[in-house]
Amino acid sequence: MAPAMKVLKPGDTIGILGGGQLGRMLALAAARLGLKCQVFSPDPDSPAFDVVQNATCAEYADVEALELFANDCDVITYEFENVPAATALILDARRPVLPAQSILKTTQDRLVEKDFVTSLGIGTAGYASVSSVGELRDAVEKLGLPAVIKTRRFGYDGKGQAMIRPGDDLDQVWDDLGTKEAILEAFVPFEREVSVIAARGTDGSVECFDVTENEHRDHILKFSYAPARIPDALAAKAREIAEKIGTALGYVGTFAVELFVVPGKDGASLVVNEIAPRVHNSGHWTLDGASVSQFEQHIRAIAGWPLGKPVRLGQVTMTNLIGDDILDYPKWLTVPGATVHLYGKGSPRPGRKMGHVVEVKPEV
Amino acid sequence: MAPAMKVLKPGDTIGILGGGQLGRMLALAAARLGLKCQVFSPDPDSPAFDVVQNATCAEYADVEALELFANDCDVITYEFENVPAATALILDARRPVLPAQSILKTTQDRLVEKDFVTSLGIGTAGYASVSSVGELRDAVEKLGLPAVIKTRRFGYDGKGQAMIRPGDDLDQVWDDLGTKEAILEAFVPFEREVSVIAARGTDGSVECFDVTENEHRDHILKFSYAPARIPDALAAKAREIAEKIGTALGYVGTFAVELFVVPGKDGASLVVNEIAPRVHNSGHWTLDGASVSQFEQHIRAIAGWPLGKPVRLGQVTMTNLIGDDILDYPKWLTVPGATVHLYGKGSPRPGRKMGHVVEVKPEV
Repeated sequence: MAPAMKVLKPGDTIGILGGGQLGRMLALAAARLGLKCQVFSPDPDSPAFDVVQNATCAEYADVEALELFANDCDVITYEFENVPAATALILDARRPVLPAQSILKTTQDRLVEKDFVTSLGIGTAGYASVSSVGELRDAVEKLGLPAVIKTRRFGYDGKGQAMIRPGDDLDQVWDDLGTKEAILEAFVPFEREVSVIAARGTDGSVECFDVTENEHRDHILKFSYAPARIPDALAAKAREIAEKIGTALGYVGTFAVELFVVPGKDGASLVVNEIAPRVHNSGHWTLDGASVSQFEQHIRAIAGWPLGKPVRLGQVTMTNLIGDDILDYPKWLTVPGATVHLYGKGSPRPGRKMGHVVEVKPEV
Repeated sequence: MAPAMKVLKPGDTIGILGGGQLGRMLALAAARLGLKCQVFSPDPDSPAFDVVQNATCAEYADVEALELFANDCDVITYEFENVPAATALILDARRPVLPAQSILKTTQDRLVEKDFVTSLGIGTAGYASVSSVGELRDAVEKLGLPAVIKTRRFGYDGKGQAMIRPGDDLDQVWDDLGTKEAILEAFVPFEREVSVIAARGTDGSVECFDVTENEHRDHILKFSYAPARIPDALAAKAREIAEKIGTALGYVGTFAVELFVVPGKDGASLVVNEIAPRVHNSGHWTLDGASVSQFEQHIRAIAGWPLGKPVRLGQVTMTNLIGDDILDYPKWLTVPGATVHLYGKGSPRPGRKMGHVVEVKPEV
């Protein structure tokens, strides 16, 4: 029985679960709107701790800490989708938690998510539930190879998944994955990857940013371009898909829909790859390339405030600074028109997202 | 004997004297660059406290608090120009304080400042030092009326000044001003007010934003427009003036030069009204209307980092939300392309700056 939503006023406090760069940028966006944030994270070096007056450093299973945290907040949100169910339950009993816990149940499980998307009449890659090597064989038979085997839960940035190619040893593949809950997805021969960053308000209105085109390196987002280089009609279709998903979920806040653009003889079509129930790396360009960012839209939504009508300010390129890329920050500081974001993280481990750069070319 | 400047690295800490909206926006800009801030302010309700992990709430005369604060910081700056000399001295002995204290001596005193500007061959309003009603009479004789009498120190937003018109009782004017250190300034028949927001780095380079046009209401800035509606040649001249002033001061950080545009038969000319040795309200548009803001330029400068090359993203209008204007924030939230900034201040007293809105129209 979650407490009723309320409309926040300036000076009220938003609780953020998770202290990484997404939590940090959410807190910075809230600050600009005159709202306070309190961050909950088990990591004492959480980047988000630096930008809030009140932080809670405790485990997600620490019931007392969660209760005290909830008492300090007017509404609670999170920066990551894998919030433990027990954690969400404890918070949910005390304060509104947005997006709603029921949504996490859909998006935390790739199989449930695909079933949900399919039920809306929206295309996905072919897929099959796999819970044994026997089922894996059946699924490969049905979907063909290459295909991608993924754990149903807790995967990100290419972790918990493997490409299966013709001739691969399926017993070995299944052993390596080390789970009983998996999904096999048909390989999609896409020409590009795009995403729609959208926000949905408590009033049910949805605002989509311009469709973003994404390039990955080693399964990690490296570049985003806005707008995506796709026909206007396809971009409109992508936004419709995002709006349909957000509405069907009863979502409140910012979310991302990752899509593949698949070439076809009647023109390109779209299939949904994944839904992220949170602000998303491919929306970082909105910090500097739009009048309202994805972070601010999320804050507005969970505050019960009207969503902004984002205006894109030009042709935008976002470059992620991953691992040692961060060492180039002095060079990036000198690039005309580039806006540099550093997350305040200590050690630049390989694959770690350390910062990003947004370049906006005003359109002429 | 101030400690030598050093080049900060991400994760280092900037100390900010003053906890108002300028300190808050400086801290938010530092956060984006991966730098931490510690705020020192005597006001427990300081808006800047909300956005930093470490704050010092103490009087500016509290030597022990100042010393502890300095020990935590790698470099110290301030959000207001009237830093007490003793405070600056204590800090200066421990950490680099930027901009340098010597600069405050020039800009804290309207007479010293005007002498300085004049010494650079840059125009100002006619002026005369006034320390008695007798000198006031002489000054009025020399400069004519109307003219403006101002305290030499501690004036802002129209406080500590009065217009003198023909027929006014000079004894009364002098009594009302209540100081022995004043300056009479000839009235300037300006056609518009503009300002240049500039930053100077430790390497001596200067970057100016596009000249801003400003409209005041009741002596408080209400609207800024960028670019100013003045000829390009005049705008270039304004930027030259700012660069000359910054260089002559040996300034490090962001500063503002307020100028009057005075019509003349050979075209308009410029006279300097005031120098502000800090980020400035008329530069708030740069938060959303330029690729690098005045706040970030200040942080870069005092960190010993290269200045950004700001690119303006369109035609920009900044509207201050003063006093009860803040009650309109829900309306502003719905204006397409508008970016709303609320400062997290409690009570909307008349004349109190509560927030601002930036509107950017991409140029077509």
